[in-house]
Amino acid sequence: MPSKSTDFSAEFDAAIAKVASDVEGMLDVILPHADGPEARVFDAMRYAIMAGGKRFRPFLVCESARLFGVDPVAALRVAAAIECVHTYSLVHDDLPCMDDDDLRRGQPTVHRAFDEATAVLAGDALLTFAFELISDRDTHQLAEVRIELVRRLALASGGQGMVGGQMIDLTSEGQQIDMGGITRLQRLKTGALIAFACEAGAVLGRAPREPRHALRAYAHDMGLAYQITDDLLDVEGEAALIGKATGKDAHAGKATFVSILGVERARAQAAMLSEQAIQHLDLFDEKADLLRQAARFVITRRT
Amino acid sequence: MPSKSTDFSAEFDAAIAKVASDVEGMLDVILPHADGPEARVFDAMRYAIMAGGKRFRPFLVCESARLFGVDPVAALRVAAAIECVHTYSLVHDDLPCMDDDDLRRGQPTVHRAFDEATAVLAGDALLTFAFELISDRDTHQLAEVRIELVRRLALASGGQGMVGGQMIDLTSEGQQIDMGGITRLQRLKTGALIAFACEAGAVLGRAPREPRHALRAYAHDMGLAYQITDDLLDVEGEAALIGKATGKDAHAGKATFVSILGVERARAQAAMLSEQAIQHLDLFDEKADLLRQAARFVITRRT
Repeated sequence: MPSKSTDFSAEFDAAIAKVASDVEGMLDVILPHADGPEARVFDAMRYAIMAGGKRFRPFLVCESARLFGVDPVAALRVAAAIECVHTYSLVHDDLPCMDDDDLRRGQPTVHRAFDEATAVLAGDALLTFAFELISDRDTHQLAEVRIELVRRLALASGGQGMVGGQMIDLTSEGQQIDMGGITRLQRLKTGALIAFACEAGAVLGRAPREPRHALRAYAHDMGLAYQITDDLLDVEGEAALIGKATGKDAHAGKATFVSILGVERARAQAAMLSEQAIQHLDLFDEKADLLRQAARFVITRRT
Repeated sequence: MPSKSTDFSAEFDAAIAKVASDVEGMLDVILPHADGPEARVFDAMRYAIMAGGKRFRPFLVCESARLFGVDPVAALRVAAAIECVHTYSLVHDDLPCMDDDDLRRGQPTVHRAFDEATAVLAGDALLTFAFELISDRDTHQLAEVRIELVRRLALASGGQGMVGGQMIDLTSEGQQIDMGGITRLQRLKTGALIAFACEAGAVLGRAPREPRHALRAYAHDMGLAYQITDDLLDVEGEAALIGKATGKDAHAGKATFVSILGVERARAQAAMLSEQAIQHLDLFDEKADLLRQAARFVITRRT
């Protein structure tokens, strides 16, 4: 008989697989098609989006939306938009002038499957499409809600969010960086979009200040635990499992949580952050159980 | 004593210089700063934006807004956002994997002055910042107006607009392309954002359908006249005047309006489109005189 924790894990696995299937189905329908010579950029957008991935950010949107009784289709549209932004960032980060990666999720990266120019444009178009999607009346009947989502997505994704984090990451190669520096780097590079994913459900549900703040605090700690685990997997993971080269960070002379803390302390830090993330959800009832599971998942995942 | 047409031209020159100065002043204030290592991406954004340029799109926003009595500061914010999108497209188009240009407006392009990775990120951040700017409550008190601007900007800039046009441009190098094909290419690559610039004033002013359509029709013809003139300048212009290498299109084996129509017919076509653009403004009074002048300017400019 499976233990209770295994049950929980199976429930989480099923829930995230359902969201992945739903968001991929929606993206397949809403991503634009074209007959003309511009079809190449749409093919590349679709290739990048449909390459798989956990769809963790969409899961966070859908689960946070469920806390406030939000229409699941509305949540899925915002989830799809966030996945477009996440995917664009991967396409650009993989470029030869950035991380120069040939593989992503076990498949050739967009600039390898197409070419560099198409990869730049597909990333640009995915970012733009996210705003097109959110601003559509189908996402929410109230313009106030749609514009708040646009604004928070822009703040999370731009120079003061994700792009700023990537800039810090690039400039800090081979540099001394301390725990505060790397925490800030990751808060911008991955944390800002994860925080938006968690807060988006609250925005859609017009939730008051307190649960919003709780979700942001949850996202902050969970996102950092996620990133520390990424660094641990980079050191310990098997290339075949995670579908990309491992040990890359050390090779690139990049400071990571593991290079600063060591494996054991990094693992303990991730566990502490995961617990802390779960505590931020104390004001929610059992509806938040899958978010609690997500905080456990981020530190136990193998890929 | 100057002729009437010279008077008009001086009035137009002064008006567009005023908008350029205003929009640069505003961008200088609103573009974000940073102290951390991400400052590099903000420096690159500022470098790209402040490299000069006619600020023709901002001028179109401000003049279309004036037709409907829109608050000039609101118009200027939207103008600044459109200039950010235009500038991002130039930064990415200049990359080695795209047009591979070393000079832009007589200065090193962003990837030459900084590096390729920073140029990709600065473009990404400029695009994102445009949405941040428009979605801010300071742009318009009504969420309905802000979200309509976001949506139209996304549609004009993405795969079905500007980015799609750039994709067609890249795939059509060395290909046979006819007048219909190149018109469609330019309608997407440059026309869509110019049309949004002209319509933005009407959106801000909550104008009815008829003047909106007139402005779109004006933008369509004027934008095409602008592009045909670009092709003429590429053949005839002096490199020193336009601040970039000339004859590039022919060298790259790109079809242009001039390669299809020849110089004389291209010139006649631009003149016809300019006149037609002016006729679309017949429902406006003398408040539209500077837009009429703009349609003359696009075919007589030297740079």
